[in-house]
Amino acid sequence: MTKRPPRYPTDSGTVATHIILPGDTNGHNTAFGGKIMEWMDITASVAAMRHCGTPCVTASVDDLSFTRPIRMGDIVILKACVNYTGRTSMEVGVRVESEHPLTHEREHALSGYFTFVAVDKEGKPMPVPAVEPRTDIELRRARAAKERQARRLEARKQRES
Amino acid sequence: MTKRPPRYPTDSGTVATHIILPGDTNGHNTAFGGKIMEWMDITASVAAMRHCGTPCVTASVDDLSFTRPIRMGDIVILKACVNYTGRTSMEVGVRVESEHPLTHEREHALSGYFTFVAVDKEGKPMPVPAVEPRTDIELRRARAAKERQARRLEARKQRES
Amino acid sequence: MTKRPPRYPTDSGTVATHIILPGDTNGHNTAFGGKIMEWMDITASVAAMRHCGTPCVTASVDDLSFTRPIRMGDIVILKACVNYTGRTSMEVGVRVESEHPLTHEREHALSGYFTFVAVDKEGKPMPVPAVEPRTDIELRRARAAKERQARRLEARKQRES
Amino acid sequence: MTKRPPRYPTDSGTVATHIILPGDTNGHNTAFGGKIMEWMDITASVAAMRHCGTPCVTASVDDLSFTRPIRMGDIVILKACVNYTGRTSMEVGVRVESEHPLTHEREHALSGYFTFVAVDKEGKPMPVPAVEPRTDIELRRARAAKERQARRLEARKQRES
Amino acid sequence: MTKRPPRYPTDSGTVATHIILPGDTNGHNTAFGGKIMEWMDITASVAAMRHCGTPCVTASVDDLSFTRPIRMGDIVILKACVNYTGRTSMEVGVRVESEHPLTHEREHALSGYFTFVAVDKEGKPMPVPAVEPRTDIELRRARAAKERQARRLEARKQRES
Amino acid sequence: MTKRPPRYPTDSGTVATHIILPGDTNGHNTAFGGKIMEWMDITASVAAMRHCGTPCVTASVDDLSFTRPIRMGDIVILKACVNYTGRTSMEVGVRVESEHPLTHEREHALSGYFTFVAVDKEGKPMPVPAVEPRTDIELRRARAAKERQARRLEARKQRES
Repeated sequence: MTKRPPRYPTDSGTVATHIILPGDTNGHNTAFGGKIMEWMDITASVAAMRHCGTPCVTASVDDLSFTRPIRMGDIVILKACVNYTGRTSMEVGVRVESEHPLTHEREHALSGYFTFVAVDKEGKPMPVPAVEPRTDIELRRARAAKERQARRLEARKQRES
Repeated sequence: MTKRPPRYPTDSGTVATHIILPGDTNGHNTAFGGKIMEWMDITASVAAMRHCGTPCVTASVDDLSFTRPIRMGDIVILKACVNYTGRTSMEVGVRVESEHPLTHEREHALSGYFTFVAVDKEGKPMPVPAVEPRTDIELRRARAAKERQARRLEARKQRES
Repeated sequence: MTKRPPRYPTDSGTVATHIILPGDTNGHNTAFGGKIMEWMDITASVAAMRHCGTPCVTASVDDLSFTRPIRMGDIVILKACVNYTGRTSMEVGVRVESEHPLTHEREHALSGYFTFVAVDKEGKPMPVPAVEPRTDIELRRARAAKERQARRLEARKQRES
Repeated sequence: MTKRPPRYPTDSGTVATHIILPGDTNGHNTAFGGKIMEWMDITASVAAMRHCGTPCVTASVDDLSFTRPIRMGDIVILKACVNYTGRTSMEVGVRVESEHPLTHEREHALSGYFTFVAVDKEGKPMPVPAVEPRTDIELRRARAAKERQARRLEARKQRES
Repeated sequence: MTKRPPRYPTDSGTVATHIILPGDTNGHNTAFGGKIMEWMDITASVAAMRHCGTPCVTASVDDLSFTRPIRMGDIVILKACVNYTGRTSMEVGVRVESEHPLTHEREHALSGYFTFVAVDKEGKPMPVPAVEPRTDIELRRARAAKERQARRLEARKQRES
Repeated sequence: MTKRPPRYPTDSGTVATHIILPGDTNGHNTAFGGKIMEWMDITASVAAMRHCGTPCVTASVDDLSFTRPIRMGDIVILKACVNYTGRTSMEVGVRVESEHPLTHEREHALSGYFTFVAVDKEGKPMPVPAVEPRTDIELRRARAAKERQARRLEARKQRES
């Protein structure tokens, strides 16, 4: 059984929830950044696979910026969806929030942008369905993603020159 | 800042998403049961904390039954909410689904029921807000949870006699 | 080289020993429940394999109840054996004790019952040798396991109706 | 005993070596991206601490781009040093190479830029020693880092407007 | 409640059981040596604490030799007990066996000797109860341990000269 | 592309860097010995593979002695190289240093000797290139390694007699 591939940002929407346990901390009673990035990569790749329905590989990570540290014991909520698509690539935005375990107050902790490339069985890039942003926020995210993509291509050209 | 504690099953609703990587498998290319239970315990305890707003400890696990194995590479979705409350305890139902990474077909993989007790700073049990089921499915789950609770008390009485 | 499959509960007896390190705790200086369940699943599945001599898969977990929390630094002892057998299934009881690292005082921390199904290479259920309880405690455990099994079948029938 | 804080990029130079074991892979016999990022974060934060001699926290990650996948069994070498300093922040470049375990052929696998902020005991940002690039490659890296920093400030301004 | 500290090798006897899962392997379908050493260290330190009833720290590891590789899926059994005591140190022997999951055939996989020093709250070495070997095998192990201890002291003298 | 196999101790030189995070500790705010041994095994096996260019398996560990505990938050530096070669075996020395994260003071924490055997695809031992020590310290290490090797062969003979 197959189904029509998702095309709207909401079709690839993915939510993950964790708790910061001592084994996830950095020794200062706050979350170890590397662990949060690991969770972001998993959540983002689920969103990418939900969009394209083929295997895909991480190509780059950009503009991952920490707004505030996450404390031990906090609940961590990750939300990801596809913001923008190229011919064979998808940019997935991941927003990470921390929730206080007792007051349930939520704060934005960090965000980041993961680009994935869809690949066939031989690992060759293959086309992805175009994402169709509709709401104001989706359109805004797509524009910002497009600018990041232009910057990435520019940066790659510089590296190779 | 505090807020009114949640009282409906949806107020404690919690979703977690994972991918079965090789380090999560049992050597037969399927998910290692102990890992899935670890994820269920985390997801369930987030739901319990969202309900009661106090620390809480795992008291028991019941009727955790595997419908089908989860394959390596599958996306795993865990959904938890509080089904039923006693004076100081909460029963959280956790439903685990596996999603094929390419076809996105979803299947029920296993379910289980986790009971938590709310505790104060000294670890003494303390009252929890009553959950108020409203929809048909919420009412059905609450009835089933009440029966499990009666059975647990019966079983405990037998162990202690 | 093969050997006669074990048939008495003692033939499947399995002991595991761990220490609760910081990476195994939940942030309150006590063991994280999900980690203990992970260790229980491993110990129980060794007992099941020792009984049946074929691959087997976790089918369900019941009546897992925590008597008291396990502290960081405690030694943890898990003891498992097959209590009861159906045609293709085995119920394994797991008892978990905590031992204080300095006084060596031991306390019962939790217990639980894991059911496994023996499977052939295609994953089809296959018959298991019958377990033969002999001592009073073995006979008592087998009776309790038989009641749990009846309850599980009853619960499954309800779910499917 | 204290020592003069390091000021040249080589003073913060940090090398880490790993092997890609099955538990570090993603199910396609290649390294799981999240694990590599975790190792990069550790290596980068050692470089940052070697530069500033105070605690420091991850502020952002940029331009992390994968050139090629790393295979299971490959040796992974991470090299980090401080490229550029602001008043209270440091940009650390991390280069990741994979080395074939038998032929010892090395390939560039990915690179990324981690920004850390030095903090005092209350978590307030505090000044860092200025890094002094001298060689051609160090000067080139510092210029590129300065451009990234300008872009980050620009992006932050846009987010906050 | 306290109890008389154990004095015979059997008083410190410790058994641990594990299964080699994919996350414990080295990419050649056999157990990763570092993981086995980690399990040996835990099992040995339980035996040491059972002997002395005080905190103790790993001082050295000797003569750890692998007889044969352990395959993925194998059951691993570790057996440890105190062989020999100095004034403040204890030598713990750890024997590791692998058990085939289906045939239950057991083979000796490796052995090693861990020396621990008992310490008080300030980390200062403190006297341990003398172990009293009685059986032939216990006496033989104590003699071998005494020789290893002489060799260790000799080696330390050489390093310091 | 192939290259001449390395023959000098420096050709197999390997450096690894870690930070002691809470998940790496033993509950007394110091590094868990088993974790350090895991890192030593990885670092040593990279050095062995760099020397011989064939797969190799851990054969034994000797004279691993802890000079001082490593604290939580410390940077850990592991340095390994091949000291000595037999016909099919290599002895790798691993030196572990701890570096204070703020003062950067370095201390020797422990050392150990890992012996690896080079194997072909069937797991049969195969010849390794001879290492050629040149400097005073390399020659001294080779002599000490040769003595340890003689002792290991002696010990094995005793075990088998």
